[in-house]
Amino acid sequence: MNNGLEDVVAAETVLSDVRGAEGQLIIRGHPLSALAGHWTFEQTAHLLFSNFFDDLPDAMTFATRLAEARSEVFEITRKQLDSLAELPVYDGMRAAMAMLPDGIVLSDALRLLAAPAVLLPALIRAQAGDAVIAPTVGTGHAADVIHMLGRSDGAKALDTYLVTVSDHGLNASTFAARVVASTQAGLTSSVLAGLGALKGPLHGGAPGPVIDMLDAISANGDSKGWIDRTLDDGERLMGFGHRIYRTRDPRADALKTALLSFDHVGPRLRFAEGVERVALDALHRRKPDRVLETNVEFYTALLLEAVGFPKRAFTGVFAMGRIAGWLAHAREQALTGRLIRPASRYVEPVTRSAA
Amino acid sequence: MNNGLEDVVAAETVLSDVRGAEGQLIIRGHPLSALAGHWTFEQTAHLLFSNFFDDLPDAMTFATRLAEARSEVFEITRKQLDSLAELPVYDGMRAAMAMLPDGIVLSDALRLLAAPAVLLPALIRAQAGDAVIAPTVGTGHAADVIHMLGRSDGAKALDTYLVTVSDHGLNASTFAARVVASTQAGLTSSVLAGLGALKGPLHGGAPGPVIDMLDAISANGDSKGWIDRTLDDGERLMGFGHRIYRTRDPRADALKTALLSFDHVGPRLRFAEGVERVALDALHRRKPDRVLETNVEFYTALLLEAVGFPKRAFTGVFAMGRIAGWLAHAREQALTGRLIRPASRYVEPVTRSAA
Repeated sequence: MNNGLEDVVAAETVLSDVRGAEGQLIIRGHPLSALAGHWTFEQTAHLLFSNFFDDLPDAMTFATRLAEARSEVFEITRKQLDSLAELPVYDGMRAAMAMLPDGIVLSDALRLLAAPAVLLPALIRAQAGDAVIAPTVGTGHAADVIHMLGRSDGAKALDTYLVTVSDHGLNASTFAARVVASTQAGLTSSVLAGLGALKGPLHGGAPGPVIDMLDAISANGDSKGWIDRTLDDGERLMGFGHRIYRTRDPRADALKTALLSFDHVGPRLRFAEGVERVALDALHRRKPDRVLETNVEFYTALLLEAVGFPKRAFTGVFAMGRIAGWLAHAREQALTGRLIRPASRYVEPVTRSAA
Repeated sequence: MNNGLEDVVAAETVLSDVRGAEGQLIIRGHPLSALAGHWTFEQTAHLLFSNFFDDLPDAMTFATRLAEARSEVFEITRKQLDSLAELPVYDGMRAAMAMLPDGIVLSDALRLLAAPAVLLPALIRAQAGDAVIAPTVGTGHAADVIHMLGRSDGAKALDTYLVTVSDHGLNASTFAARVVASTQAGLTSSVLAGLGALKGPLHGGAPGPVIDMLDAISANGDSKGWIDRTLDDGERLMGFGHRIYRTRDPRADALKTALLSFDHVGPRLRFAEGVERVALDALHRRKPDRVLETNVEFYTALLLEAVGFPKRAFTGVFAMGRIAGWLAHAREQALTGRLIRPASRYVEPVTRSAA
């Protein structure tokens, strides 16, 4: 029995295609390289939502309605922020999202799409004892996040990041969202399932440990020595290798380009590039037959740090982008799929009594 | 492609076995008929939890710790109850549960197991403008729910119901919980996924429409005429037939027996039995080759109505029982399974540009 279902096709999708051998990610017909850095997150979400909502307006109006949804989420959740700020930031964000209406129409989707962008900055500031900043209509989605964080730099880089992680085939969180949608439950129900799976250490989207590694190497001072010792001890380096991509992860390139738009990360980026070079050398030397390239987590970590997010919020920012894919997949499943209900095999051998 | 995964074995489980041909449900070696009406919900949950938690105490201590967990949940969530009472009762319960710690040890599981039992009565009373009643240590789980509802009768029937629905193979909500657990996420994350799938109209666990049907027939006065007209119009009768059971649903019998413990439901139960008889006659006359028997929803509806739950809370009471299974399946998946990550097939034909 294959209980990871790796070879089982559980959905047909128009949304994205992960082409591991070529190192390509296609989002609704567009290679990621044509979107990241060129399209806004709003435009990308609009692309993902196409055909899945009856009343989808043009992309410009969609962006305006998303901005209005940010204000709506802020109003719905602001009274709860102080108590939710007592939870870990990701859990507080999720608990606030659990209070949103659980429907299946565009206004429900827009509220959910807006929610992490509003809630993460608000909870981060509330936890730091800073006054919460309300969203602004008339600003781009990523720029509004920067504004709500109380920062001024990094909107373009954050926008590129959100587009880059907006969808990625049938990963575990997207599948969880589709399983729930397959029962014809609402979008909040699907998104809560996606949020749960994304938290799991095995989901593979945790860039926080990259920062821990860079800080440890920086404190040590000797990149090569630290990396060799770590590999000698049989431990993994953070930010290298991917289950699917047999060549460079296309998302890593998109994010590295975005990072170059920051002036002030120059020294940190140069340091990280040095670590990357030494790490790749060491990995190739030890496993010459394996393809081990820098993955999306490595540059995600540097980018989110530069934007101003604390490490503990990284998975939440991942959700801020990936929620566009969850919502589209949930609608696609509800509109075109069937109830997902696989079988189990009972392995308890003995029936204790016949009633 | 089979995107409902019906024939795919996605998990091996020691927890339960649905034997459709025989009309049997086995829970960890025990036929349901040996548990329902004989074991308490606490004992059944203890059975389901065996081997999945390091420090599982004996069943008596387990029941005491569950009672303590009810008090703990009440304290954690009481400040939020007024605002959560503005949501639909199921969503309010879920949002409160999203505030619970997201760990994987027994205390986390006990809090989640306790939560629907505490939150549903509290939200029902808050929505009615009644004062919320705190849980009591030293009472059985089901009896404490009756107490928190402000009622005095029905503890035994509710206990039987909770045991009856505590687990049922790999249904959609249990699978959703296992998908999330397969990422090694916490139990709150898994339970939120299960709660989302359980809400879906296709999950098949919605007893509310049975009450609507009984009320419509009662108002009409002519059971036979109403049922014939409904079937002539090509509509379904609520509470009959099951995807898996080819004979009588074993859970229906357990619940019917429990219903007989109420004095005051006599007339309602006799009326429902009359409707059942007329409905089965009509169904067998029209489809003599098909097995259409009364299912678990039919008697669930009558039982939960008799216990004193409003119709809108029925799915929440289902969750109050099924959460025992979700928690056990989540632990089983995390301990013995792998990351569940099936494949998808991309069906967008044209790649618009090569970047």
